[in-house]
Amino acid sequence: MNITVERAAFLAALQRAHRAVERRNTIPILANVLLRAEGGRLTLIATDLDIEIEDSLPAECAAEGEATLPAQTLLDIVRKLPEGVQIKLEVSTDNGTATLRAGRSRFALNWLPASEFPSLGRLEDGVAFDIPGHALADALARVKFAISTEETRYYLNGIYLHRDPQVADRLRLVATDGHRLSLASLTVEGLPEFPGVIVPRKAVDELERLAQAADKAPLALLLSPVKLAATLGKARFTTKLIDGTFPDYGRVIPLGNAHVATLQAEELLSAVDRVGTVASERGRAVKFTFGAGKLVLDVINAEGGGSASEEVDIAYAADDIIIGFNGKYVVDLLNATAKTGPIEIALADPGSPTILRRPEASDALCVLMPMRVS
Amino acid sequence: MNITVERAAFLAALQRAHRAVERRNTIPILANVLLRAEGGRLTLIATDLDIEIEDSLPAECAAEGEATLPAQTLLDIVRKLPEGVQIKLEVSTDNGTATLRAGRSRFALNWLPASEFPSLGRLEDGVAFDIPGHALADALARVKFAISTEETRYYLNGIYLHRDPQVADRLRLVATDGHRLSLASLTVEGLPEFPGVIVPRKAVDELERLAQAADKAPLALLLSPVKLAATLGKARFTTKLIDGTFPDYGRVIPLGNAHVATLQAEELLSAVDRVGTVASERGRAVKFTFGAGKLVLDVINAEGGGSASEEVDIAYAADDIIIGFNGKYVVDLLNATAKTGPIEIALADPGSPTILRRPEASDALCVLMPMRVS
Repeated sequence: MNITVERAAFLAALQRAHRAVERRNTIPILANVLLRAEGGRLTLIATDLDIEIEDSLPAECAAEGEATLPAQTLLDIVRKLPEGVQIKLEVSTDNGTATLRAGRSRFALNWLPASEFPSLGRLEDGVAFDIPGHALADALARVKFAISTEETRYYLNGIYLHRDPQVADRLRLVATDGHRLSLASLTVEGLPEFPGVIVPRKAVDELERLAQAADKAPLALLLSPVKLAATLGKARFTTKLIDGTFPDYGRVIPLGNAHVATLQAEELLSAVDRVGTVASERGRAVKFTFGAGKLVLDVINAEGGGSASEEVDIAYAADDIIIGFNGKYVVDLLNATAKTGPIEIALADPGSPTILRRPEASDALCVLMPMRVS
Repeated sequence: MNITVERAAFLAALQRAHRAVERRNTIPILANVLLRAEGGRLTLIATDLDIEIEDSLPAECAAEGEATLPAQTLLDIVRKLPEGVQIKLEVSTDNGTATLRAGRSRFALNWLPASEFPSLGRLEDGVAFDIPGHALADALARVKFAISTEETRYYLNGIYLHRDPQVADRLRLVATDGHRLSLASLTVEGLPEFPGVIVPRKAVDELERLAQAADKAPLALLLSPVKLAATLGKARFTTKLIDGTFPDYGRVIPLGNAHVATLQAEELLSAVDRVGTVASERGRAVKFTFGAGKLVLDVINAEGGGSASEEVDIAYAADDIIIGFNGKYVVDLLNATAKTGPIEIALADPGSPTILRRPEASDALCVLMPMRVS
């Protein structure tokens, strides 16, 4: 392999691919990035055996070929090289070193053969559909805060991606950790039938990144029961899926919550955040007292850290209800789904799951389990 | 105590005072900030028993008085309150809680009496002189990177502040960890005689901050053999000094280094940084080969991490010299003292201390001990 690439393009591709490389590896070659020079392009592939990121850039190929090089060192070198410089990379099969030259700098790096590099493999079969990038990025951002971190419930460690059972051409994303649930939907023209899949957390972040990059362009998804691939131009992201059954989440979404308070998200967010200041590390319960025209928030730190009280204007015509929520969960939920603008809190009683949603929204909602407050 | 203060001014003063509060305290009251309402002002004092920060702001005092409140909680609350709000703080001696009100927020916080708050005490005696803020800030920034972190050599854990023994009205700052030394001087009109003192690292950071805030205004210093106080308007910073003897550093500053190379700092900085990419964590030695018109930098990673080579243009007319330096030390030194512009490297031989300085500079220099390179 003997190629010349432009620093900025190489750096951008390395930064993207590098995200798949785990900091600590028991398998040495996983610390490397695969470089393949072919047909006027340099392709980069990195993997942690769960996800795989592929990207490419134009390259002058004096000799085609492939090799794997240490990803972190290569990224550091390219980042430190001066802007606008051309980088020459030569890997000779005669000896074990690759040579990188740029300006008056010269580096010799050890490489490992590309044939030893593990690949998640191409998805040949599966259902294929296009999603507008920004709509997918938005839905992922709204849902991912509710992903469980409890390793024993591995089937909750991701976002459940599936067809809306009631509405055609609607893709649904759901995550829950048992204390809170977030659901978002988006319209996908001609959405084919497929069994629901669970996309693991690390993959959610990468998928969101690629969807943001796509913006108004479509992201091409390819789904098999065990893998998902997303393609945007020459960039491809592949992930294994969680092998498990997502619970029947529909059962925890209440249908009858008739007591509805309407308020401004930004006011609730800042008030909950403020009263949380005096909460102890362990007890994050905030007492919500819904009354006519007014929501009162109270926190009492049982470990002697003081107390806090706030009032927020609401539109609310039902009976007074006193209910407790984890303040951190409310802040997370609002930050992810509704930082500003009107929101509705639909209540049943102090012991039942509560719904938070934008008024009239049919495409998204959150469910929050209450906490006991004195 | 019953006062009303403006949020922005209170927040700024709290943020400054809070810097003296240690995250973990064995003495509970040290987690608190002392608040004293008197004569239309609110004074804040925080300490860790080594340093003390005092600041004040205008306050409407309906009732004067003093109390100590939890610094972190108070700072969090005030930061989270909306901009432009007025804060009412009332501490009644009848019960154990202080009440903070702002807009529709209300907080009750536990307080401890001001009489129990430890103070470093005012410096009544000592030498006093004014220093231009920006000149002091600049000198501290140039010197502090060389402060030792080795706790057993406690007398090196700070900056040695003393009169220049040769030049009148010159204040000198020196730090060294045995591997590198940095010296800076500044002119102080009418500098009185005083025995040299060692300012500990944490105090150096705070002093630098206050000196930056002073900018072109003078910072008033008051020095006793055991304490230093710096005053800027109503803000005062006090620190204990290190009780030890700073070594006779003059002996390690070579006088006869006759082989002088002149080069651009930014070129050396980026080249040393780049070759360091392939260095192992333990071995940071960079081989410097000084020759006519050219400095070659080489790093070989003995643990199989590859090698790197760079060239930098220099003006150099003496015999070739091959000498090793710790690459990280060179990067630290240049970042602190000369990021850009011409610098001189004055060499004796591969085994002797080397001087780095700006050409013709008499107010600052650095000394670097060489490393063995193969």
